[in-house]
Amino acid sequence: MTIQEIDEGTEYVGFNKALELVLSNIYYVKIDTLALESCTGYFAAENVIALVDSPTGNISLKDGFAVKAGDIANASEQSPAVLRIIGSGFAGSRFEGHISNGQAVKICAGSPIPSGAELVIPEEFCTQTSTEVYVRNISDDGKNVFYAGQDVKAGALILKRGEPLLPARLGLLAAAGISRIKVYRKPKVSIVAIGDEVVAPGQTLKDGQLYASNLVATEAWLSSFNIPCSTIITNDNRKDIQNELTKILPMVDAIITSGGAWGSERDLIVKVLDSMGWEKIFNRVRMGPGKGISFGLLKQKPVFCLPGGPPSNEMAFLQLALPGILHMAGQDGPPFFSIKARLAESLKGRHSAWTEFRRANLFSDTDGSYKVTLCPEISRLRSMA
Amino acid sequence: MTIQEIDEGTEYVGFNKALELVLSNIYYVKIDTLALESCTGYFAAENVIALVDSPTGNISLKDGFAVKAGDIANASEQSPAVLRIIGSGFAGSRFEGHISNGQAVKICAGSPIPSGAELVIPEEFCTQTSTEVYVRNISDDGKNVFYAGQDVKAGALILKRGEPLLPARLGLLAAAGISRIKVYRKPKVSIVAIGDEVVAPGQTLKDGQLYASNLVATEAWLSSFNIPCSTIITNDNRKDIQNELTKILPMVDAIITSGGAWGSERDLIVKVLDSMGWEKIFNRVRMGPGKGISFGLLKQKPVFCLPGGPPSNEMAFLQLALPGILHMAGQDGPPFFSIKARLAESLKGRHSAWTEFRRANLFSDTDGSYKVTLCPEISRLRSMA
Repeated sequence: MTIQEIDEGTEYVGFNKALELVLSNIYYVKIDTLALESCTGYFAAENVIALVDSPTGNISLKDGFAVKAGDIANASEQSPAVLRIIGSGFAGSRFEGHISNGQAVKICAGSPIPSGAELVIPEEFCTQTSTEVYVRNISDDGKNVFYAGQDVKAGALILKRGEPLLPARLGLLAAAGISRIKVYRKPKVSIVAIGDEVVAPGQTLKDGQLYASNLVATEAWLSSFNIPCSTIITNDNRKDIQNELTKILPMVDAIITSGGAWGSERDLIVKVLDSMGWEKIFNRVRMGPGKGISFGLLKQKPVFCLPGGPPSNEMAFLQLALPGILHMAGQDGPPFFSIKARLAESLKGRHSAWTEFRRANLFSDTDGSYKVTLCPEISRLRSMA
Repeated sequence: MTIQEIDEGTEYVGFNKALELVLSNIYYVKIDTLALESCTGYFAAENVIALVDSPTGNISLKDGFAVKAGDIANASEQSPAVLRIIGSGFAGSRFEGHISNGQAVKICAGSPIPSGAELVIPEEFCTQTSTEVYVRNISDDGKNVFYAGQDVKAGALILKRGEPLLPARLGLLAAAGISRIKVYRKPKVSIVAIGDEVVAPGQTLKDGQLYASNLVATEAWLSSFNIPCSTIITNDNRKDIQNELTKILPMVDAIITSGGAWGSERDLIVKVLDSMGWEKIFNRVRMGPGKGISFGLLKQKPVFCLPGGPPSNEMAFLQLALPGILHMAGQDGPPFFSIKARLAESLKGRHSAWTEFRRANLFSDTDGSYKVTLCPEISRLRSMA
């Protein structure tokens, strides 16, 4: 088939349309309620409101002395204010009394501000005796008080449905009195490598066979996103493929097949799925590498059929299957951090309706902007690595 | 203490010196041998050599016909070459015969190139009858043969000690016949939150108490790097702290404490560690936030004492403790992807020997370069999130 025929063929869809079809045909899986410390890498399945103020009361930002503002307004190096120390407070145990004019309470960072006090003089501006403190200098620029609810106010919306549960966000939730939240469950995925020639790592290789490198790489990608997955290698045989798919479908939320997806006599996966009555959504994509990707629903569960060649397999997986799988885990945005960069060399385009993905090296140029150079395409697996 | 005194004090070290002291006093933990599919996120503890060529033989890059070059040299749309089809080969089962002049073998992408054939004509340039193939056009620009060892040659160094085991790298290792490799084990970490005022999420909060948000955030950071960790909350009491440290030390590879690290009467952690005979390596760092971080070795195991205030705690953790912990897992580089960007606003510096970390928003400017703006520092936990 030529590029011309590909464009005119009814089976092909453009890359952006394919991605849209994947995301619109895949729904969130299920919801779990997890303790905060188990939520890393999940996405919120509910809006969350702060239960308590954080901090719960006014606290000191410094080790020092809590005082009334009027008492130290005119203090200086030459003429320090002299205040009577009436007690001390610590982070876990507040000073229970009240501060009046001429008095100070020694407190440390994190301690509640005693009743009657208005600000905290850091200890470096003070000289202490057993009963009195000399405040020499008030050049510190703030009151050194962190007010109740200044981090977060009870009743405030602190997490929106769909947001990722990153560490600092989990800390904020903890401070706001939250201990468990609803998250989208990670989908269970099965990866099925199809081909008489495919051999699991550790087995002996016969002439014409190859190790299941796609399987290992795909499994590694999924596990780097904490997606649980199982793997199967099956023969290039209609009945074996159908048996495996029938067996695993009830146990998983999605299936990724590898190999058997391009149009030769022996490429059976799409025919098998057709005979099993899947809802085929697209069967080729105008992208390269990876044009031989098919996608559909088998009993409502997404099935991605990836081509077998390593670069096509990886690109089809990363650009279409992985965003679909992560969407099931509640992720709406792209799976990777992206950087805008300029091409450091010219690139010959061949067709506007075609999306070509090229491997490239990113570098920071002397002018501070980012540029990319394309990788030479000699060793496929090495440039991927 | 003023900035002046800080610089002159003997206990303080600069940030870069502190990071160097952390990395030079921490060694790799232990080595495990893992199956490739379990290696995601680990670092290699050995150099690895390819065991087999990949591919093992010459294979076709296209679905099409394997032929001799001379037979199709003058083929054209007007005068196609006519070749006799003598058989077919698939990815898992090679055509066992030999191709002579005037003959072709139908093969698909991934099939071994039959003996005698020199190149593959893609099927879109051919018209096929039951016994013959008409090659109309040879405008395709290559031979469409992927040669034995072109991905990787047996004997080649394909993984160096210390390299991260990313998905495509694991695929390359699988293709090269590797099934298990030696990796650095992830260290077991215990996080100890110190303070009478600290309460675990889910418990009831009394006046002056606060939820252990540092503990939750630190645990989440470690688990995002797949570092196993346990957590403990202990009272601000010398004996309790010592008992907890004594109990957990034999079970873990490193300890991170939170709180109790700044110099007031109740800040006990460093005193407790001194009394337990730790080797104190530094006890303050010229950085902000996070200056109150101490680091040392207790029975050879690294102990990081982080300050209790959330911004100080997070920054001391991310800039010094986390690189140290990841170094134990075999990572030599920085833990985060970094981007060079220009400040979009001016920033007033106060001291050259001091390292100040500021939270910022990164954006891509209209000229294609990256710029940062500083976050306002009103709500600490919100700007961190």
